[in-house]
Amino acid sequence: MDTVTEFCIRPIGTVESSLTNTQDAPHQDNEGAPEAWLVIDRAFATGLEDIKPNQEIWLLTWFHLAERDVLKVHPKNDHNRPLAGVFSTRSPSRPNPIGLHRVRVLEVAGGNRLRVDHLDALHGTPIIDLKPVLDQ
Amino acid sequence: MDTVTEFCIRPIGTVESSLTNTQDAPHQDNEGAPEAWLVIDRAFATGLEDIKPNQEIWLLTWFHLAERDVLKVHPKNDHNRPLAGVFSTRSPSRPNPIGLHRVRVLEVAGGNRLRVDHLDALHGTPIIDLKPVLDQ
Repeated sequence: MDTVTEFCIRPIGTVESSLTNTQDAPHQDNEGAPEAWLVIDRAFATGLEDIKPNQEIWLLTWFHLAERDVLKVHPKNDHNRPLAGVFSTRSPSRPNPIGLHRVRVLEVAGGNRLRVDHLDALHGTPIIDLKPVLDQ
Repeated sequence: MDTVTEFCIRPIGTVESSLTNTQDAPHQDNEGAPEAWLVIDRAFATGLEDIKPNQEIWLLTWFHLAERDVLKVHPKNDHNRPLAGVFSTRSPSRPNPIGLHRVRVLEVAGGNRLRVDHLDALHGTPIIDLKPVLDQ
């Protein structure tokens, strides 16, 4: 049975970053990604209450420039590596191009802005959810 | 500036579980959740290649029964706890009700079914993405 329903995501905010094109973006969070600001739309700012500096959070983004009809990729976009099933990789191109980033909050400003320690997402990337990191 | 664009998610599969109603569901993955099967639609099965038994993966689900207009919740649905900003909790009810679950693959069957060790998602929950767990 194939599922045909679709669900619509409304972004809750946007990434502000010095990364402005995909060539500059590192391939994993821990490979030299810069600090970034998470700017949450005012309509959702109430949901940020109780997020504090030094807390680690999961940030979910939408890779708006990614391709969605891809099921096999070269890991890290390295064509010397054999093709792998996309769900065994962190490729941004995938059927639902959701990015998962573990980041540390450095600063909370103005009630709707979070500065985080490193993020491999381009300037303008839509933010779709934030969650606390649990012991897992 | 508020973001008005919407993005549509197409589920890639469905959870098969003995959990059939929200009263039975534990509030976190590590509180006695049962094994479950992740049944991936045939159209996406190629993307599962290279996922192996004993591997840990991130499973992203869509909490299709959740409310989406909620910005403050009682953590763990415990009304003795003070209301908290929804993004500082793991509540399924949130603007984009995406579930994030770290699970271990126990078995791969038929090219499109993964048995996982514990999952706090109800039978019929849509699956929207799978990713490898990295060292983070």
